[in-house]
Amino acid sequence: MLILNPDVEKYVQGLSEVEDSIILEMEEYAQSRDFPIIGRQGGRLLYLITAVKKPRLVVELGSGFGYSGYWFAKALTDGKVVLIDYQEKNIKKAQEFFQKGNLTDRAEFRVGDAVQIGQEYRNIDILFLDLEKVRYLEAVKKLEKNLSDDGLIIADNVLFQGKVISQPENKKAKLLDQFNRYMSEHYFSVILPVRDGILLAVRKT
Amino acid sequence: MLILNPDVEKYVQGLSEVEDSIILEMEEYAQSRDFPIIGRQGGRLLYLITAVKKPRLVVELGSGFGYSGYWFAKALTDGKVVLIDYQEKNIKKAQEFFQKGNLTDRAEFRVGDAVQIGQEYRNIDILFLDLEKVRYLEAVKKLEKNLSDDGLIIADNVLFQGKVISQPENKKAKLLDQFNRYMSEHYFSVILPVRDGILLAVRKT
Repeated sequence: MLILNPDVEKYVQGLSEVEDSIILEMEEYAQSRDFPIIGRQGGRLLYLITAVKKPRLVVELGSGFGYSGYWFAKALTDGKVVLIDYQEKNIKKAQEFFQKGNLTDRAEFRVGDAVQIGQEYRNIDILFLDLEKVRYLEAVKKLEKNLSDDGLIIADNVLFQGKVISQPENKKAKLLDQFNRYMSEHYFSVILPVRDGILLAVRKT
Repeated sequence: MLILNPDVEKYVQGLSEVEDSIILEMEEYAQSRDFPIIGRQGGRLLYLITAVKKPRLVVELGSGFGYSGYWFAKALTDGKVVLIDYQEKNIKKAQEFFQKGNLTDRAEFRVGDAVQIGQEYRNIDILFLDLEKVRYLEAVKKLEKNLSDDGLIIADNVLFQGKVISQPENKKAKLLDQFNRYMSEHYFSVILPVRDGILLAVRKT
């Protein structure tokens, strides 16, 4: 199921040149391995939101080899981003890219269960969800108490290639739909049709 | 030209209930008069960005009867939004809605040329462009010096029903495309495929 008109995607992509060669290298790394990443537009959105919010602590659940984390780190003026992934080889690769980009001083690298490790952190200004899709709801329920008062939650893949709509019985799609409904009920949330669907949410006031 | 899959739009809309009856009234007012507004998703995005950024001064160029301004005002914790429109009857209608919603203390209402009036303000934290499409580039060039250091520019309709892609020779589409290119070159900008295209931009660092 096509979420966005491909011509629109192409137009927007054409206006999104990147000067940082490490970003390009990471995109090539992802493409050659079919490793799912948030994509150029998603990464740019993370950068912009970070530049606007100026968070001191960003915690990522499910960092892969660090593509999204790299965009967060680039935009930080203060503070750090914590990258967590259960695969050591992903985190090692992330560290390599961060070293090349001179961003290691803004990052912390952790290997293990993201939901468990994430709970060690308090006053999270941005919580980024990109772990196994079946765990989104569990993750937000376990970690919402660790958010700062004006904390922001960002979740990737919330439209799941459109399957939350076209295949509502698909197990992952069903759980993501439940997550989206929970977020809509308990937070002020917005789903942006950027690539695979990115949700942004703040506390209701 | 369809920008977004209508099923996705419907799904997202279903997760975007609004409790404020004034918003609903404004949406009905727009619909019954075919008055172009940024729409529910766009309005919610403005609210979320405002909640994240906590601006003290929002200046709108082209406020219509106040739909976008109302979303900005709802999200403000401090400061104000300046609504500017060249039609007195639009601004009067906006004032009515703001009164009903108890938001007049967070707003200033101005009638006249938006680009000219906008220049009276300094340290603009969010500059919102929704005036005549042929004037976007002129507006940003004349007003960029009035932005605060970490000011954010938000522009509606930057995809112009997809015509920036499908009808590049259309006069308005051409000028919007030039605006998009200017923003991509001089700012860090992101185009979100929300309804008619919403651009967010901050200064490059």
